[in-house]
Amino acid sequence: MLPVNPDRFLADLHRLREFGAAGVGRGVVRPAFTDPDIAARRWLREQFAACGLEARIDPVGTVWGLAEGQSLLVGSHTDTQPEGGWLDGTLGVICGLELARAGAEAGIPISAVSFEDEEGRFGVTTGSRVWGGFTSLAAADRLTDTQGVTYAEARARIADIAGEFPDPGRFRGFLECHIEQGPWLDQAGEAAGVVTGIVGIRDMRVTFTGEQNHAGTTPMHLRRDALKGLLRFQHLIADRFRNVVVGETVWTTGHVELHPGSHSIVPGRCTFSMQWRDGDKQRLDRMEEIIRQAIEDAAADTGLTAETSDMLGLDPVPMDEGMQQALARAAQAVAPGRWRRMPSGALHDAASVAALMPAAMLFVPSINGISHAFEEDTDEADLVTGLQILAHAAAEMAAR
Amino acid sequence: MLPVNPDRFLADLHRLREFGAAGVGRGVVRPAFTDPDIAARRWLREQFAACGLEARIDPVGTVWGLAEGQSLLVGSHTDTQPEGGWLDGTLGVICGLELARAGAEAGIPISAVSFEDEEGRFGVTTGSRVWGGFTSLAAADRLTDTQGVTYAEARARIADIAGEFPDPGRFRGFLECHIEQGPWLDQAGEAAGVVTGIVGIRDMRVTFTGEQNHAGTTPMHLRRDALKGLLRFQHLIADRFRNVVVGETVWTTGHVELHPGSHSIVPGRCTFSMQWRDGDKQRLDRMEEIIRQAIEDAAADTGLTAETSDMLGLDPVPMDEGMQQALARAAQAVAPGRWRRMPSGALHDAASVAALMPAAMLFVPSINGISHAFEEDTDEADLVTGLQILAHAAAEMAAR
Repeated sequence: MLPVNPDRFLADLHRLREFGAAGVGRGVVRPAFTDPDIAARRWLREQFAACGLEARIDPVGTVWGLAEGQSLLVGSHTDTQPEGGWLDGTLGVICGLELARAGAEAGIPISAVSFEDEEGRFGVTTGSRVWGGFTSLAAADRLTDTQGVTYAEARARIADIAGEFPDPGRFRGFLECHIEQGPWLDQAGEAAGVVTGIVGIRDMRVTFTGEQNHAGTTPMHLRRDALKGLLRFQHLIADRFRNVVVGETVWTTGHVELHPGSHSIVPGRCTFSMQWRDGDKQRLDRMEEIIRQAIEDAAADTGLTAETSDMLGLDPVPMDEGMQQALARAAQAVAPGRWRRMPSGALHDAASVAALMPAAMLFVPSINGISHAFEEDTDEADLVTGLQILAHAAAEMAAR
Repeated sequence: MLPVNPDRFLADLHRLREFGAAGVGRGVVRPAFTDPDIAARRWLREQFAACGLEARIDPVGTVWGLAEGQSLLVGSHTDTQPEGGWLDGTLGVICGLELARAGAEAGIPISAVSFEDEEGRFGVTTGSRVWGGFTSLAAADRLTDTQGVTYAEARARIADIAGEFPDPGRFRGFLECHIEQGPWLDQAGEAAGVVTGIVGIRDMRVTFTGEQNHAGTTPMHLRRDALKGLLRFQHLIADRFRNVVVGETVWTTGHVELHPGSHSIVPGRCTFSMQWRDGDKQRLDRMEEIIRQAIEDAAADTGLTAETSDMLGLDPVPMDEGMQQALARAAQAVAPGRWRRMPSGALHDAASVAALMPAAMLFVPSINGISHAFEEDTDEADLVTGLQILAHAAAEMAAR
C-alpha cells in the first residue's frame, strides 16, 4: 500500500472546496473556465509541482501532474455543475494528488490529472473527449454554452498558462475515484463499489401529432389528442420492458411539451424525451426495438402520427478486467465484505480515457444518493477508506 | 316571417369581413379594441343608424342599435381571436342587423347588438359580463391582456365615442345566432341546431410532486417520478368516467409541464391542466368527485404528493324554454327534419345575457367543425337558412 496521509488528503479536499464555496452545506459553484475554476486549477498546478511532478495545463484547461517515465494516471475533474457539491470530481483529483505524493515518497511513479469541463458547460466530458480523440479541437471550439459563449472564447482565458497535451503513451492505465451519486452503497452500508463499466445511454425526442381543436366543441370520439400518444406509449413500454430490463436498467421521460399548451385547446402535438441507460449494449438494442415498436403501436392505437429525432447513442464502456480485479482485492483487504461490483449509471472521464489505455473506477457512497446539489456529501471515514483502497490497488498495479 | 333580404345580409357579412381580413381562406384578425375592431364598430354604428335605430357605443365598446319601446334583442360579437374566422360572432351580429332592418320595415321592434371582447383579450365575454352584472367596471379595468395592456387603457381608446349602457329592462329577450364550431351538424348534413343550454366548465391545475433526481444513477424502484402521477391519473379517470359521461361530455388536458424539464433528470414536479364541460351540473359534480379521488389515488399509488389549484367553475346556463320552442317550430318550418336540439360546448354572450332576460341560441353548421382558425367557414346556403329560421322565430316571439 502506498503511504498515503489521510489528514493531508482531507485538508486538501477542504482547501479546494474554498474555490467557489457557496450555498448551504458544502456547496460549490465552479463551472468550467469561470474565475473560481481557473483559480482552483492554478492552485492545483502548484500542488503538483510541490510534490515533484511536472505540472502542466494543456490547451483545453486540463491540469496534469506528470511523473517521469511510465506511470499510472490517477484523477478526475474539478469543474462543477452550476450548483454542485464539494466532492463530485474533486474527490478523484485529490485522490490523484495524494497518491502521486505518496508515490513520489515511495518511489512509485504516479501521475495526477484534473480534466476540464466534465460537467458539460460546452459538451459532456469535453476535456477528456478532446484528449481521447473523440472530438477535434477545431470542432470543440465551435461548441457554445447556454449563454452563447464559445469553447474557443472560454479556453482563450487560460491561453497564457497553457502548454502542450501530454502523450497518452506515457501512462500505463487510468484510475478514477468518484462519489457514487446514487443510493446503492449508502443504503447497504457498504464502503466502496468496484465499477464494472460505464453504462451506455440512448436518448431521443418523440413527437406525436394529431389535430389541434376546441376543447369545448370537439367531441371525445372525434378528437386526435396528441397527449393520448404519450399515455399509450408509456403504458406499452412499462408492460413490454418487464422481461427485458434488470435492476440497474433505467429509463426516463424528463421533458414533455404539448402544443399549443392551453387549458381550452385539445393539443395537436406532444413532444417528449425518452432516455434509457444500461451497461449491456444488447439490452440497449432490445429496448430500442421495443421503444420504436411502441411508438408505432401507440400512434396506430390513437390515430396519431409519430416521428422521432436523431438518437444520441453512447455505447457502454467496460472497465479493464485486470484493474477491476486489483481494485476488488484492495477493497477486500481494506473493507472486507463491505464492497460490491456495480455499473456506473452516470458518465465519467474514465469513459473517454478507456479509449486510450486500461481504465478503472472506484465508487464511494453518497449520503442519501444526492449529487449535483449543494447537499451532496459523503462520510469522511468513507472518503479515507476509498483513498486506502486506491493506495492498495495502485501499489499492486505499479508492481506488475 | 320577417321580410329579411338574404342578398343584403350576405353582402354585409362580406363587408364586415374586410375589417382585419387576413390569412388564407376568409381569415380575419380583429381582436377587441384593435384598430380594425374599432373601425368595424364605427361602420356597424352607421348601419344601425341607417335603418332607423338609435345607434350607440357603450363604455366598454359594445355597439347597440336600439329600437323604440320594448324590443327583442338580436346579436353576438364582432371581435375575433388573434387569428380568427369570418363568421364567429360576426354572423350573429349581421343577423341582428338584418332582423332589425326587416323589423323596421315590418313595424316589429328588433334591437341589435355587437358585444365587445367576447373572445377574451381581457377576460371571457367581458363586454356582456360587465353589462350582465357579473363583473364591475372597476374590477374589469384592472384586467390585463398578455402584453400587460389594461382593460382601462384599451377602452380609453373609444372614450370619445362612448355613451351610456342601455337599460336591460327595455329588451323582452335575447336571440343569438352562432356557428356551431363543432362537427355535429356538418357531419349529419343538418342545417341548424336549437341550443338547449350552454355547458358548464370546470378547470383546475393539478400538481404532483416527487423527487428530482439523476436519470442515470437513480434506480427505478427508488424513484418518485412526478410524471407517473399524470400517467396514473389519466388512466384512472379514463376508467372511472365510463359510466358517468354522455356523448356531449368532454374533458381535456391541454397543458403539461415537467420540472426541471431535462432529458437527464427524473422530474420532481408535474403540473397539468384538467378541464371538463357538460350541460348538467350534477354530472359536473360527479366528475369532480371522480377527478379529486383519482388525484388522491394516483398520488398514493405512485408515492407522490398532490395539490390542486383553485377551480374555475362556470355553471351550465339553460336556454329559455319558450324561446327554444319558437326556434324549434321555425326550424321545422324552414328546414323540416334537418335540425336538432343540442348543447353548446363553447361559451357565448348569451350565457351572460341570460342573467338579465330570456335568452336563446341557434347554431348553423361549421364545415369540418373548424373554428378559431382562418379556415373556418359555413356554406352560404346554410347561413341564409339560419337567417330565415331566426326571421320566423323573431316574428313569433314579437307576436306573443
